[in-house]
Amino acid sequence: MRVLGIDPGLRITGYGCVDAAHSPPRLVEAGVFRLCATDDADSSADDGLSDARASRSAASLSRRLAELDTDFRALIERLGPQVVAVESLFAHYKHPATAIVMGHARGVLLLAVRRAGLPLIELKPNAVKKSMTGFGHASKEQMQRAVQACFSLPEPPSPPDVADALAVALCAAARSGAASL
Amino acid sequence: MRVLGIDPGLRITGYGCVDAAHSPPRLVEAGVFRLCATDDADSSADDGLSDARASRSAASLSRRLAELDTDFRALIERLGPQVVAVESLFAHYKHPATAIVMGHARGVLLLAVRRAGLPLIELKPNAVKKSMTGFGHASKEQMQRAVQACFSLPEPPSPPDVADALAVALCAAARSGAASL
Repeated sequence: MRVLGIDPGLRITGYGCVDAAHSPPRLVEAGVFRLCATDDADSSADDGLSDARASRSAASLSRRLAELDTDFRALIERLGPQVVAVESLFAHYKHPATAIVMGHARGVLLLAVRRAGLPLIELKPNAVKKSMTGFGHASKEQMQRAVQACFSLPEPPSPPDVADALAVALCAAARSGAASL
Repeated sequence: MRVLGIDPGLRITGYGCVDAAHSPPRLVEAGVFRLCATDDADSSADDGLSDARASRSAASLSRRLAELDTDFRALIERLGPQVVAVESLFAHYKHPATAIVMGHARGVLLLAVRRAGLPLIELKPNAVKKSMTGFGHASKEQMQRAVQACFSLPEPPSPPDVADALAVALCAAARSGAASL
């Protein structure tokens, strides 16, 4: 089974596709969609309010959402996942303004998944962290190292959004019984 | 000029279309998209966390977003607005969890506007309230009465989401010089 994990953000959306028919699961492809010309290389969607402020104009938002929609639908078409996995929303975000902007991107991604007729697996953020590291409050760096180890990568996946998306895909594959971590 | 105002929410999205070539502007059509079978008649997206909790499941969200997308694109096609207007995001929401879910709906709507090739006018919530009532912190009831008066309606538009969408359309029409309030 091929699982596509996504980590939605407006500036950066991470994705990671794994083939769970193999044991250990094989990494098919992973990366990010960057949707702002001024992005710096290692920032993530959790960086804070500046992200939300920069992308709050509705016209700018709509332009970037259309780009994200086009890119994401092309990715689904190209990789042909059987299922898409995403983290559930959680109750308290450190930066609510950023989370509202993230919601715009997540809405567009969920719509594309639905339009593609793909099943959606939803995972609690802490459950993903725990399944990868044994610790529900693992740091970004710990998640990056866990994903690196899992796929025997020469370096930790970067930015952290890629590692998070891969972790979501791995966790979803394990949950659906098609792979064991 | 025909202006379509929208007030995004996941449970209820209000819309209001006005023809600004007339003076006073003529009401073309207004209404709501209701996206939950268990909606009660007069609740609005500001009701609080229960809305966010009820719609937090990604599968349920994606289903409702697809419905909203279909309905909204059909509305644009049918009414043929020249411009779409929406309130800008503001810094502090009373209910951040609900606002994140609203962000999903707003993202899908902004994408549809972009895909339709329509210009987007963005208005600050307080500016809309002030232009309708003279008071930037007008209550929902005050907004409903102001919109009722503007169109000489027999009753205040209800739910408040309809009045808000009409107010956004009127304010956008006034801003673009095609109507005066």
